[in-house]
Amino acid sequence: MGQSIKIGLMGLGTVGNAFVRALSRFQSDGHSACENAMEIKKILVRHPDRHLDYDSRLTTDARDIIDDPEVAVVVELMGGMEPARSLMLAALKRGKAVVTANKEVMAHAGLEIWEASRKSGAGVYFEASVGAGIPVIQGIRRGLAGNQIHSITGVVNGTTNYILSRMTQDGLEFSTALREAQREGYAEVDPTDDIAGYDARRKIAILATVGFATWVSPDDVQVDGIAGITQDDIAYGLSEGWVLKLIATAHRQQDTMKISVRPTFLPQNHPIAQVMGAYNAIWVEADPVGNVMYYGLGAGGYPTASAILSDVLQAVRDLMGQHHEFWPVVDRHLKLDGSENSRVMSYWRLEVLDRPGTLAQVAVTLAKHGLSLRSVHQKPLSGGRALLFLVHHECAEHLWRMARTSVAQLSVVEHVGIPVSIWQSEEESRER
Amino acid sequence: MGQSIKIGLMGLGTVGNAFVRALSRFQSDGHSACENAMEIKKILVRHPDRHLDYDSRLTTDARDIIDDPEVAVVVELMGGMEPARSLMLAALKRGKAVVTANKEVMAHAGLEIWEASRKSGAGVYFEASVGAGIPVIQGIRRGLAGNQIHSITGVVNGTTNYILSRMTQDGLEFSTALREAQREGYAEVDPTDDIAGYDARRKIAILATVGFATWVSPDDVQVDGIAGITQDDIAYGLSEGWVLKLIATAHRQQDTMKISVRPTFLPQNHPIAQVMGAYNAIWVEADPVGNVMYYGLGAGGYPTASAILSDVLQAVRDLMGQHHEFWPVVDRHLKLDGSENSRVMSYWRLEVLDRPGTLAQVAVTLAKHGLSLRSVHQKPLSGGRALLFLVHHECAEHLWRMARTSVAQLSVVEHVGIPVSIWQSEEESRER
Repeated sequence: MGQSIKIGLMGLGTVGNAFVRALSRFQSDGHSACENAMEIKKILVRHPDRHLDYDSRLTTDARDIIDDPEVAVVVELMGGMEPARSLMLAALKRGKAVVTANKEVMAHAGLEIWEASRKSGAGVYFEASVGAGIPVIQGIRRGLAGNQIHSITGVVNGTTNYILSRMTQDGLEFSTALREAQREGYAEVDPTDDIAGYDARRKIAILATVGFATWVSPDDVQVDGIAGITQDDIAYGLSEGWVLKLIATAHRQQDTMKISVRPTFLPQNHPIAQVMGAYNAIWVEADPVGNVMYYGLGAGGYPTASAILSDVLQAVRDLMGQHHEFWPVVDRHLKLDGSENSRVMSYWRLEVLDRPGTLAQVAVTLAKHGLSLRSVHQKPLSGGRALLFLVHHECAEHLWRMARTSVAQLSVVEHVGIPVSIWQSEEESRER
Repeated sequence: MGQSIKIGLMGLGTVGNAFVRALSRFQSDGHSACENAMEIKKILVRHPDRHLDYDSRLTTDARDIIDDPEVAVVVELMGGMEPARSLMLAALKRGKAVVTANKEVMAHAGLEIWEASRKSGAGVYFEASVGAGIPVIQGIRRGLAGNQIHSITGVVNGTTNYILSRMTQDGLEFSTALREAQREGYAEVDPTDDIAGYDARRKIAILATVGFATWVSPDDVQVDGIAGITQDDIAYGLSEGWVLKLIATAHRQQDTMKISVRPTFLPQNHPIAQVMGAYNAIWVEADPVGNVMYYGLGAGGYPTASAILSDVLQAVRDLMGQHHEFWPVVDRHLKLDGSENSRVMSYWRLEVLDRPGTLAQVAVTLAKHGLSLRSVHQKPLSGGRALLFLVHHECAEHLWRMARTSVAQLSVVEHVGIPVSIWQSEEESRER
């Protein structure tokens, strides 16, 4: 056995700590010499006084890692765009393999990172950037190699899934469920990034990039969050046999791609509908495999460390074999299917004045824009008001937007809730 | 680009045909030169006249593939033990990589196959042997690399799952559901191999071998099939919130392993309970990842071809990189936890004479063997008989076996149905 492979670790938070422990446990389990030949040489931290047990390996200067010719693998666990992005680029430029959990950098600057990897011949590994320990990136790239990926659909944000699960299973209102999520550590003090769907947007962009082997930017993703969802929405869905999820989805048809993050009603018996709490699941429709789903915890130090560890082991194998392949990601060649072409079927909750003619006015307005109703349910409220639960048949998205604006302007309509898409399977979509 | 890599295909049934088509579709999609550099040179068939469109590539003599120095990858899709096993060994001996869907050979002769691979330096790839296109073998081996696998639990046989799903969802009796399965092509004319759990036994042996990195033989697996399950069993389970599945499971604790295939009641909300029809799912409990599940179609030409294709692509990459690793499978170092030590909690259905004192006799008999009852339900039948549905608390398996024999011998007991295990999660098991 030659020399061990030296690792430079950047960031020693929850995931960093879990990784250090998981690596040490793995090495003490007595594996083959090849897999044991690894050593964390330096750890970049902001506050060395908080990590006294790591003593001499700690540094506050990234150059101690980047400029160390012995360090062959950089594990970046700092999170956030900068300085992570610059440090990853610098590491690749010096021929060091990079393993990262950083979804911001991979989603927004992935193209630049892959380009740097290709130029220098050093590998980039980012399994941990989506779905924590769920092996979905390699599961798609390797496990479904040779498949044509039609669609990738997922529950990829644990915070919103925890909130929606509590609303669904325990009847909580949104604000109560959010507070519970914060108390349990599933939501940040400022939960905007999760609630508004931005986190899910980055993850579906990464998944689509991997699945379609073409660069997909988060800006390509149409996004609606879950703020504004009420217990009325959840209860209405359940009465129809539907479960509300924040669904991130990317579809591809020939050279066209449609990609969105949206609150969506799924049939209760769909495997994705049954993903509860902080779990994540990614559902892939592909040819020839059919449907495949990957499921597991979507966050947390140890689950994330699992993905980091498997990537580090892969990086070490690739280094020892002097062999690794680059991501075959090319710059955009898929057309985005913008909202003008896309078709939607959705549910709206309207708060209206409960008087004769209200429903007629709403129906006439919808009809004017070409929307036909699939179902209407009414629930009386106090104070001469009522809730209308509408589901319309599929229509073009631009008509839908105009109809929604017109309905909101009716004097009998006091409030329009946020719309919820109705899930249609790939087969249903293709039959259209 | 140098010369293309030549493939020798053995077997041109449903999977073989699907593989040929999937490969050709993949190549016409315009991938990188590297991945395109493959060509099926020879195809071994029994009846060339049935495959006229493949003309000159057909052969009935395996030596045309084995002895051809140009053939670098042998894809074995004949199924069954012989001649598949001998041909795989011969191919490996000549340094050819072997890709196979053959669960018989991998489960029963895996050790011999890996040994041949290690000796000659040629790789063995068998993703398709379990769960068709579900990337579970590499998903465990690579995706959870560095994890300690505590348990692997799966619905791995589509035939029995189809039958049990129809019994659960549509209230069919076993014999009707089996006939439906045969009509739909999910069950063989002689369904014994599936119904008795032998197919599931081979698959859990392969999964345990991969997950525990130690050789596990199908003979190590305790197996009970589903013949004898009645609609009464299914309905009783549902009334308790349980779904009946044929569960294959392998647990490891330090150096001890427990592995079985058994009809099992799972809580309705467990993700595995929701796997219906011909779908398969494999649930892995591991450290540090937590729980991960892989889900997808468990059989069929195209799903299986997906796994073959991804393995062939991996074999080609390994050949081009002059680099592949061997399976770190060692001969047995895990102790089998035999039935004397293992503990069970199960449900029994008894057909009894409906007269005073019957339940007392049963209860006394159980108590004599140290079994305590968790619940008893009675359902009257015609003709002075009744069904007793018992669930007992956990007890040692040898006591359980004696108790069952004694109960069956009681004059008031006319019939003892097949016992169904009650699912206990890894955490519950560890708390004992």
